[in-house]
Amino acid sequence: MTSRIEVTEKIIATKVGRGLKWSDVAAKVGLSKEWVTAACLGQMTLTPAQAAIVGEIFGLSEEERRWLTVVPYKGASADAKPGDPLIYRFYELVSVYGPTLKELIHEEFGDGIMSAIDFRMDLRREPDPNGDRVNITLSGKFLPYKTY
Amino acid sequence: MTSRIEVTEKIIATKVGRGLKWSDVAAKVGLSKEWVTAACLGQMTLTPAQAAIVGEIFGLSEEERRWLTVVPYKGASADAKPGDPLIYRFYELVSVYGPTLKELIHEEFGDGIMSAIDFRMDLRREPDPNGDRVNITLSGKFLPYKTY
Amino acid sequence: MTSRIEVTEKIIATKVGRGLKWSDVAAKVGLSKEWVTAACLGQMTLTPAQAAIVGEIFGLSEEERRWLTVVPYKGASADAKPGDPLIYRFYELVSVYGPTLKELIHEEFGDGIMSAIDFRMDLRREPDPNGDRVNITLSGKFLPYKTY
Amino acid sequence: MTSRIEVTEKIIATKVGRGLKWSDVAAKVGLSKEWVTAACLGQMTLTPAQAAIVGEIFGLSEEERRWLTVVPYKGASADAKPGDPLIYRFYELVSVYGPTLKELIHEEFGDGIMSAIDFRMDLRREPDPNGDRVNITLSGKFLPYKTY
Amino acid sequence: MTSRIEVTEKIIATKVGRGLKWSDVAAKVGLSKEWVTAACLGQMTLTPAQAAIVGEIFGLSEEERRWLTVVPYKGASADAKPGDPLIYRFYELVSVYGPTLKELIHEEFGDGIMSAIDFRMDLRREPDPNGDRVNITLSGKFLPYKTY
Amino acid sequence: MTSRIEVTEKIIATKVGRGLKWSDVAAKVGLSKEWVTAACLGQMTLTPAQAAIVGEIFGLSEEERRWLTVVPYKGASADAKPGDPLIYRFYELVSVYGPTLKELIHEEFGDGIMSAIDFRMDLRREPDPNGDRVNITLSGKFLPYKTY
Amino acid sequence: MTSRIEVTEKIIATKVGRGLKWSDVAAKVGLSKEWVTAACLGQMTLTPAQAAIVGEIFGLSEEERRWLTVVPYKGASADAKPGDPLIYRFYELVSVYGPTLKELIHEEFGDGIMSAIDFRMDLRREPDPNGDRVNITLSGKFLPYKTY
Amino acid sequence: MTSRIEVTEKIIATKVGRGLKWSDVAAKVGLSKEWVTAACLGQMTLTPAQAAIVGEIFGLSEEERRWLTVVPYKGASADAKPGDPLIYRFYELVSVYGPTLKELIHEEFGDGIMSAIDFRMDLRREPDPNGDRVNITLSGKFLPYKTY
Amino acid sequence: MTSRIEVTEKIIATKVGRGLKWSDVAAKVGLSKEWVTAACLGQMTLTPAQAAIVGEIFGLSEEERRWLTVVPYKGASADAKPGDPLIYRFYELVSVYGPTLKELIHEEFGDGIMSAIDFRMDLRREPDPNGDRVNITLSGKFLPYKTY
Amino acid sequence: MTSRIEVTEKIIATKVGRGLKWSDVAAKVGLSKEWVTAACLGQMTLTPAQAAIVGEIFGLSEEERRWLTVVPYKGASADAKPGDPLIYRFYELVSVYGPTLKELIHEEFGDGIMSAIDFRMDLRREPDPNGDRVNITLSGKFLPYKTY
Repeated sequence: MTSRIEVTEKIIATKVGRGLKWSDVAAKVGLSKEWVTAACLGQMTLTPAQAAIVGEIFGLSEEERRWLTVVPYKGASADAKPGDPLIYRFYELVSVYGPTLKELIHEEFGDGIMSAIDFRMDLRREPDPNGDRVNITLSGKFLPYKTY
Repeated sequence: MTSRIEVTEKIIATKVGRGLKWSDVAAKVGLSKEWVTAACLGQMTLTPAQAAIVGEIFGLSEEERRWLTVVPYKGASADAKPGDPLIYRFYELVSVYGPTLKELIHEEFGDGIMSAIDFRMDLRREPDPNGDRVNITLSGKFLPYKTY
Repeated sequence: MTSRIEVTEKIIATKVGRGLKWSDVAAKVGLSKEWVTAACLGQMTLTPAQAAIVGEIFGLSEEERRWLTVVPYKGASADAKPGDPLIYRFYELVSVYGPTLKELIHEEFGDGIMSAIDFRMDLRREPDPNGDRVNITLSGKFLPYKTY
Repeated sequence: MTSRIEVTEKIIATKVGRGLKWSDVAAKVGLSKEWVTAACLGQMTLTPAQAAIVGEIFGLSEEERRWLTVVPYKGASADAKPGDPLIYRFYELVSVYGPTLKELIHEEFGDGIMSAIDFRMDLRREPDPNGDRVNITLSGKFLPYKTY
Repeated sequence: MTSRIEVTEKIIATKVGRGLKWSDVAAKVGLSKEWVTAACLGQMTLTPAQAAIVGEIFGLSEEERRWLTVVPYKGASADAKPGDPLIYRFYELVSVYGPTLKELIHEEFGDGIMSAIDFRMDLRREPDPNGDRVNITLSGKFLPYKTY
Repeated sequence: MTSRIEVTEKIIATKVGRGLKWSDVAAKVGLSKEWVTAACLGQMTLTPAQAAIVGEIFGLSEEERRWLTVVPYKGASADAKPGDPLIYRFYELVSVYGPTLKELIHEEFGDGIMSAIDFRMDLRREPDPNGDRVNITLSGKFLPYKTY
Repeated sequence: MTSRIEVTEKIIATKVGRGLKWSDVAAKVGLSKEWVTAACLGQMTLTPAQAAIVGEIFGLSEEERRWLTVVPYKGASADAKPGDPLIYRFYELVSVYGPTLKELIHEEFGDGIMSAIDFRMDLRREPDPNGDRVNITLSGKFLPYKTY
Repeated sequence: MTSRIEVTEKIIATKVGRGLKWSDVAAKVGLSKEWVTAACLGQMTLTPAQAAIVGEIFGLSEEERRWLTVVPYKGASADAKPGDPLIYRFYELVSVYGPTLKELIHEEFGDGIMSAIDFRMDLRREPDPNGDRVNITLSGKFLPYKTY
Repeated sequence: MTSRIEVTEKIIATKVGRGLKWSDVAAKVGLSKEWVTAACLGQMTLTPAQAAIVGEIFGLSEEERRWLTVVPYKGASADAKPGDPLIYRFYELVSVYGPTLKELIHEEFGDGIMSAIDFRMDLRREPDPNGDRVNITLSGKFLPYKTY
Repeated sequence: MTSRIEVTEKIIATKVGRGLKWSDVAAKVGLSKEWVTAACLGQMTLTPAQAAIVGEIFGLSEEERRWLTVVPYKGASADAKPGDPLIYRFYELVSVYGPTLKELIHEEFGDGIMSAIDFRMDLRREPDPNGDRVNITLSGKFLPYKTY
């Protein structure tokens, strides 16, 4: 009896043990490194074909591969302690800029939200003479509230 | 005896009362709409010259303008209830993608964080035939941990 | 300097003082009682025309009506104590049936969510010889997660 | 020494391992998919006859089947992390619409609650040209407060 | 613009100021001291006739009396700090005896709950040579879970 | 190395496995079903003679029986999730009626508390043509605060 | 309309304004400084005679004096921030020595508690060549759990 | 690989299994029962000589004895559930008397705290015709805040 | 009726209104800027002579000056939101380095703590070609735990 | 399948078992005791060469050494209970002095923060005739907020 969390832990431990890179895993799956890493960390659902590739890379059993195709319980993985400084900086940005995002999105689009489901993300290195920067682009569909 | 929170509340109420737009305020200040909105919402520190422009727009007294030039206690403003659906979606993204951001930033840059201080943000409408999207670009300097 | 919360409190107090009914307010606005009540309780954004009708009913000033057209900070209103037995029963249903909803929606639709934005609700009395029942129909668009 | 939680985990793992569907399980039990899924997830109590059918499907031992007939400690199962986006949307609905539900139920029925015990739920796909919708009907007996 | 909380506070302050007793108030209303005290403390809904009697006793205005007839947001009143030793003892009883109540009610009645809505309570002094005792009888309808 | 929690879990699992009833256990111990169930669930301390009877019924080892005679860390047992609907109803009663209990006990007895230690409880079925009721009598010594 | 909290705040402000000492107040009341200070801080109930003395000292009105004779909602007063270092040291002692107190009291007395109601406290300066010490004696009646 | 928590659990289980008494353990160590019990419960650091005596009594291995000489992470032990009625009474005393302790210590000593480090405690039975009492004396050095 | 919090707010508002600097205030008081700022922010107790100087600078009344000489309830002031990025960095340091500080202090000093009472702090600018640094020196007396 | 937490626990247990000192470990690594201890406690990332030295000292396997070179999830380690008195004193300092640090850093540097990443710490014994002191120097780069 395995569970998705155990499969995630096995993937992480195998990655450390074999010194694998997420970008290489993503290239083999044929999708973005952002989506594939999230899927390997237990946040997204794979098709059987994708699960076969990931299972091959990380040496997963048939049952473990099947867990990859089941919709997981999402949200920060068991290993992610909320106090981690890197992740906290993103929480701080939401805290400092949250009302600003609310004001500007409503000013441009009216009442509604930016979807966190119909969503994609792109993370890249932005060269800079004063020290390279982390550049992240978020793109989510605007979903308007409707009257009824 | 005023406080920065009262100045923020006055700015918000005046904006509603006069039907002002943040992008127009930003154009008069001569900086991005993201930084200026954050400043008007009590998250950034203005120079006396910037405070004079903002004070003119919102009809602030001399003492209220001076509060704008004092470093504020930052973090979600008094009016922002954490349960707001638009702001929550950003928390959800940090929860779902937090470990992915951690893995990919470390894979590209090594141990360290994306600065939330040496940081800028750009929010714009991304036209899309399936419904326009909210597009947000985050750019923060990478700060490496060092041995000593 | 008013705020949306003060407008909501004024609407509630006026409703009690004059003995108004939400269904009558909704009929005058010409929309469902569910949406109109939510809007009057500070959860939805009205058009100027809708705000004029609501403002007329509750005797709101020009500035107070304008607040109704500003996107509010949503989530349980200031007056709603989480310990209220009626509201708690709905929390309990989410707690008892949450995983069931997750399993059945994924079984029918795959990975994704029921939108809480592109959403409508209908509440009615369901006559029953053993005691009438509260009947609530929820309808939310299914939003699938996508690979990228 | 087993426990109900272990029986639930075995049922979930077996379902994934054998690729079973809740609607098929419900058909064999002869009750709704909503009630049967909740029961399999450890939220409802089965009769010995129902437990025999479920035990047959999931290969449960005699002792495990007996646990299914014991009233369980209810509430979100051990596997359900509250941060899951699908389940959170329901919490958000309670937060945004909670006071509205309270106002409208009291307006229609007077002081009391919608029972979460004498309750049934029906979830189905609602075809829609703009994207199919999740349609959920809740029906709970109204229970009035009484003077004494 | 008053609110139910303000009416409750006025009732409490008037009771202290005039040295009234809850049992006398209940006698005038013609119902139990338990229900009437709960109603005066903002937990129950009065009929206009009952509100007239209570309003007379506590010198309430017409608008304040009308608030007594509106279903209140229930749960511990604003004045009740959870750390109060008398109230805490009841929480402790739920903590120490909660699982015992669950086991014994299920053993006697099967799966279901004791209603907290179709409920009455009686509190009286129980003379005892070793020191008088507080005797409280709770009576709530048993509500069974049903299959569907 | 066992612990009281393990002994409690063994008692519960044995009860399910053998289909025992708490009232029968209590009859053999010769005390009330309320006290004996609480003791078996790890909330009370048994004498060696009582532990021998309970140990006999549940097949406990010598060491496990000795744990029953050690004063336990009390409060809701490890298996009791606070979200359980039956137990929650009692919390709700404390929340809705807490201030009422405080007012009426002080009105009758003066400043002090109802003891949760010098306390007994009796739970029985109350036949009722509209549906049987759960009837619970609480009796706790009144303990007055004293000056010094 | 006053409340006990307002009376407490007036007593504290008057004490600061007039430079009074708690030990002098206690001497006039004729009881210990521990009980009298607790009563003035809103934790104990005064007799009318005691309230008259305290009212005289702090210049309280008739209504304010009557509040002193009403049983208060107890627990840390509104002014007491839990982070205060002096008060925290006592919490730390409970955390570090809590299990020790439990073991030693049970070893000496059996199952039961030290009453926090039938309780008295004495605080005095303990001269010491290495720096004077705070010496506090707690005395509470032992209350045994009883079978029934 | 053991840990201090495992050593504590072994000591507790051995004490129950052999029916030992803390006061006897303390007598063999030659220190107070308060300090020795706290040390055995994982709150204090033993010297190698003390660890040898304790290790002898509880049958600890060489590695387990060494853990007793390592400064532990202090605070309520893993076994201590905060809801335990005996321990809660001490929390209640801090809540009810915290501000009183603060006022009286400052009145006697000025600004500073009672040390929880340079501290000793003595617990004894106080015979009383109305029922014996638990008598606890706390003695902690007063540490004044200093200007600089 | 003033309170220490109101005095603190007046000091802060006056500082902003007049453009004062903490280091100048400290120079007039004749103590370190760290202690004087903490005192002005409501964390330390002033002598009457110090209060006279501070009262002169900030235009405080006689009663407000007296509040400065009363030991305050300490801990983060009412204006300090815990989410502030500057203050959070210090919390993060305690989180990341807390166990390290514990290990190294115990390795050097044995069991005990660094006093936060007999404590002083010095903050200065540390010039650095790669960007100036904030340099903070903490000095607290080591307090050993003692056996008894 | 190991994890970083297991490696940390092994390091701690080995240190206790062999009686090693952090300062000796640091000397062998050739870096400060502060950084090396933090790294061994799972807070910093080692180079393969550093991991080889640490692995040698603590007898780590090849896979365990590789975990030391993976960026860890940071923040208080699993063993660190927040209630520990030594670590709490640092939290208390942040609580008492947090606003002071904010005021003085902003007065000296303007809006920005002290980096917790580009940071170093030095802990040493400060001899003092009244009792030696713990002396800790913190040095973090000042990072200014910028307009954009």
